[in-house]
Amino acid sequence: MKNSTITPPRRTFILSAGSVAGQKEKQGPLGNLFDIAGDDRFGKDTWEKSEAEMQRLALGLALSKSGLKEDELEAMFAGDLINQCISSSYGLSAYRIPFLGLFGACSTCAEGLLLASLSGFDRCAAVTSSHFCSAERQFRFPLEYGGQRPPTSQWTVTGSGAFILSALERDLSGIRGDFAPEITEVLPGCIVDRGISDAGNMGAAMAPAAADTLERYFQAGHAPEESDLIVTGDLGIEGSEILTDLLLSKGYDISSRHADCGKMIFDPASSDTHAGGSGCGCSAVVLAADLLESMKKGSLGDILFVGTGALMNTLAINQGRSIPGIAHLVRIRASAKKHFGGDLL
Amino acid sequence: MKNSTITPPRRTFILSAGSVAGQKEKQGPLGNLFDIAGDDRFGKDTWEKSEAEMQRLALGLALSKSGLKEDELEAMFAGDLINQCISSSYGLSAYRIPFLGLFGACSTCAEGLLLASLSGFDRCAAVTSSHFCSAERQFRFPLEYGGQRPPTSQWTVTGSGAFILSALERDLSGIRGDFAPEITEVLPGCIVDRGISDAGNMGAAMAPAAADTLERYFQAGHAPEESDLIVTGDLGIEGSEILTDLLLSKGYDISSRHADCGKMIFDPASSDTHAGGSGCGCSAVVLAADLLESMKKGSLGDILFVGTGALMNTLAINQGRSIPGIAHLVRIRASAKKHFGGDLL
Repeated sequence: MKNSTITPPRRTFILSAGSVAGQKEKQGPLGNLFDIAGDDRFGKDTWEKSEAEMQRLALGLALSKSGLKEDELEAMFAGDLINQCISSSYGLSAYRIPFLGLFGACSTCAEGLLLASLSGFDRCAAVTSSHFCSAERQFRFPLEYGGQRPPTSQWTVTGSGAFILSALERDLSGIRGDFAPEITEVLPGCIVDRGISDAGNMGAAMAPAAADTLERYFQAGHAPEESDLIVTGDLGIEGSEILTDLLLSKGYDISSRHADCGKMIFDPASSDTHAGGSGCGCSAVVLAADLLESMKKGSLGDILFVGTGALMNTLAINQGRSIPGIAHLVRIRASAKKHFGGDLL
Repeated sequence: MKNSTITPPRRTFILSAGSVAGQKEKQGPLGNLFDIAGDDRFGKDTWEKSEAEMQRLALGLALSKSGLKEDELEAMFAGDLINQCISSSYGLSAYRIPFLGLFGACSTCAEGLLLASLSGFDRCAAVTSSHFCSAERQFRFPLEYGGQRPPTSQWTVTGSGAFILSALERDLSGIRGDFAPEITEVLPGCIVDRGISDAGNMGAAMAPAAADTLERYFQAGHAPEESDLIVTGDLGIEGSEILTDLLLSKGYDISSRHADCGKMIFDPASSDTHAGGSGCGCSAVVLAADLLESMKKGSLGDILFVGTGALMNTLAINQGRSIPGIAHLVRIRASAKKHFGGDLL
């Protein structure tokens, strides 16, 4: 298999992002950064409709910030955790934009950015979401059941992130900040299954996939030191430790520059979320509300954003199968806007 | 929204295809064309494992026919109908090829070919599947229940199709035939929801999406007469009639050149499949085993392959929601191999 990374065929910038989050996320360390932090219901009468509404809101916010109109987008790449990705299809049916459905579990944000950057479109969007209550209903128990959670379990983030991408330099003028987040390289991940079958320990199931993708990236001639931050999707506390250990055993020390969206979004001391956050929305809102904003200001220069996903369903777990993991890598750089055409500033 | 169609950035050819089908499909009009027609179990002890095994077999067949090795592919685009697309993630975990998960319901075959052709990869694969028994278990009733099916219902095809795509002219020598099927244009579809909420009439839910995509295609300056065949994914008997009527009301008469994979795969007189076949595997095996073979021989020159999907899940139906549809268009032309470099023949 080729380990070479892929450079998008056109320079691709993330013009804007919209983030929508729930109550518990609002109480976390990043709570003040989200565009909207609602009451988890978002005015709807089922959790599934609430999650779909979050995607609709997130894309609306991102569009509004970009200054672009719906009919200027050529495609939207979207997916989520719910069976048949209905949060995306119902939530985004409000937009008349060609729709390309994805399934990458919690790696969907990275998968969407990756495919959007390769697609060659002038302008497109990547959207994803998760909702604690719709995920609990589907994957574990009805909320009322109050099932016990092991220490390694993660808490599904209620959140949706939407990103507007453009390959047109003239669009950069709309970015609020001196730097334009640019997708400079991508590396899609392989399916990695190391035999973990404990659905209460997704971090352990996904960490080997993250290690695999990062190892392939480093083998392609990159060093961990090239990046200011290597941020994984949502390995949580348990999975993050496994990842750094696995990579160290291969000779790559990322410990000084590794961060994890699942660890960033909740305060472990006060949130009762055990090993941290998870869900498609987790890495999406952390990237949208925190990391990209730091890049636009210039306080973060170059990151490896590694979305991680567990590619199972409840039936597979009930049938005793192990959990295949995947991790997609997207390298994002803060490019100084002043280096582009004079009409930009 | 832009209605312009998209030309792949590189000339992209379908080198080979593998098709795996079940017993009922073997008894249908195309029964002799499939590479493998098994006993529906494919040696596995659950229907879910059987479906995953079909994807593994289909990709293995396609690879073998292409003359390429696993490690020469840069990516595989795959998805299926089952919750969280586990047929793809489990079935294709056998291959160490970067994996990009898709969800497009029964439009997945077209979505995979579309994204593969835009991705700019030298070589990649598109794979999908469905299985009558895993779909029945998930979407309707356990098989033992023997639920009654209305006349508009379609029968989920047990089948998997895999396609190897290449943008390298030197690979064309491996194609068996004088013509190379080439993806010349694509048009991703928008989500279209016309309020159909009857899960026993997917054809009616998907037909407006197919009409929408084809109308956008014709509005972009194309005429139905440019194509030898306009073949929809799996609208079945009911949906096909709705599609041709809808387009006629817009001034486009496709009736003389329209075909539908859902109508082609079963004999309505003897198969008891009511309105025809459906499922991700339906259009995939018809394209792989029938249409592409006709193109390679030169008996079919230029087709519009329009994959159609219903983007719902069982929970959405139980909550009384309507069914959003989608249709992705892929134009495929039989390009004479003799027009390429002399080293090809």
